[in-house]
Amino acid sequence: MRVAVGVQYDGSGFQGWQAQRPGVRTVQTVLEQGLTRVADHPVRLTCAGRTDAGVHGVGQVAHFDTTAVRSARSWVLGGNAHLPADLSLSWARDVPDDFHARFAALARRYRYLILNRPRRSALWRGRAAWCHRPLDAERMNEAGQALLGEHDFSAFRAAECQARHPIREIRELTVGRRGGGIVLEVEANAFLHHMVRNIAGVLMAIGAGDRPVEWAREVLEQRDRTRAGVTAPAEGLYLLAVRYPERFGLPAGAEPMPGFDA
Amino acid sequence: MRVAVGVQYDGSGFQGWQAQRPGVRTVQTVLEQGLTRVADHPVRLTCAGRTDAGVHGVGQVAHFDTTAVRSARSWVLGGNAHLPADLSLSWARDVPDDFHARFAALARRYRYLILNRPRRSALWRGRAAWCHRPLDAERMNEAGQALLGEHDFSAFRAAECQARHPIREIRELTVGRRGGGIVLEVEANAFLHHMVRNIAGVLMAIGAGDRPVEWAREVLEQRDRTRAGVTAPAEGLYLLAVRYPERFGLPAGAEPMPGFDA
Repeated sequence: MRVAVGVQYDGSGFQGWQAQRPGVRTVQTVLEQGLTRVADHPVRLTCAGRTDAGVHGVGQVAHFDTTAVRSARSWVLGGNAHLPADLSLSWARDVPDDFHARFAALARRYRYLILNRPRRSALWRGRAAWCHRPLDAERMNEAGQALLGEHDFSAFRAAECQARHPIREIRELTVGRRGGGIVLEVEANAFLHHMVRNIAGVLMAIGAGDRPVEWAREVLEQRDRTRAGVTAPAEGLYLLAVRYPERFGLPAGAEPMPGFDA
Repeated sequence: MRVAVGVQYDGSGFQGWQAQRPGVRTVQTVLEQGLTRVADHPVRLTCAGRTDAGVHGVGQVAHFDTTAVRSARSWVLGGNAHLPADLSLSWARDVPDDFHARFAALARRYRYLILNRPRRSALWRGRAAWCHRPLDAERMNEAGQALLGEHDFSAFRAAECQARHPIREIRELTVGRRGGGIVLEVEANAFLHHMVRNIAGVLMAIGAGDRPVEWAREVLEQRDRTRAGVTAPAEGLYLLAVRYPERFGLPAGAEPMPGFDA
């Protein structure tokens, strides 16, 4: 039996999703321990998007195989009872064997939050990037449109990225001002390692006026990471949602998440 | 010289505002230590609203007297350099001697966030109350209107409340649904101890259908705390803003804060 789960986490206390050496607290390790208690056998998880240290999960999806017969409710309530406060299950569903959290995903959607005010804020530490210089959201949005479509995103790819090829398709990218902050949302078939944070870094440089609007297109076309500026901090990044073919019947409802409000 | 400061804090790591015995981490103690470093003499703070353990500060205001001559910028940047990540200064202003953070305040505004969904969420722990039963926001809003105006709020007052009399004037109270949550906002000239959390508790019982809409008025008129249900948890409460006479020239801009977004 294969089971899919919806997962949320505050990334501040985790060294990313992926299990590492013993003693390193990762989402995968802590969640596998919790689900192992419910299943009564060792559980191994595969997720849709392996988020970095500090990145938050709103609509992360993972799957595991099990011989245990449990209701969806039991997986969620039982799992949550064995999970710490910064990690939770939103839902569980029985899925067919050809479901795969990573390979069956049609699209991933991320959000990047930037607190944009002169002083830092204790309320947003670990929850948003902070830029003390005024950012022009319209300019960032205009620049971002150059990234739409299928491209070689080598310029936005971390050196350690293990993807076999750098071609990805961005289907939507919007930047807007909300209260005292900037909200960037981007959807693609899939993302390279650090791709959203590198896009955010380029758009912030444009929004602050350090670079012209055309720079986003130039960076994309040059395919050279070393010219693409800084990687924006992990704490502003949220994995918002993962979309699968309808036949799998997974919940598609938007999860409430922190957003700027004034 | 008297100086007023705007203060923000994530209440999760503090035992409330007010200084207690040594070793207890409170907002007042930590902020006094930070400002003492900037002033080079001991600083004693007075705040607008002494928040409880777990309650968050968005627009808290405090004042202190000093012999040190510092620019507003120096108080903020210097203070923030000596403060931990969960406590920050938003602004500082020189104010006349008749300014008093508590007694000069004309109004206080609080927000109460309730995550309303079947399962708990790791993203909202410490940031919102959680109610797993569906709440009817319109019903809560209607019930809350009975509390508008000047009343004896004894039914909404903590047993340990030290206020001299229980008369307060609520000037605005709204409850609305936002994404997957409920947002309660309330403004009054001042509040009794636990008053917002006790109002939230009564309105949640009404919103869940346990009590009729008229119950809010009944509770108010009975003036008996023991009939007024539970105190809603501290983690959902935010001190949003404090308003002073315009002649003091304090910043009135709304600060961005976490709100439900989907």
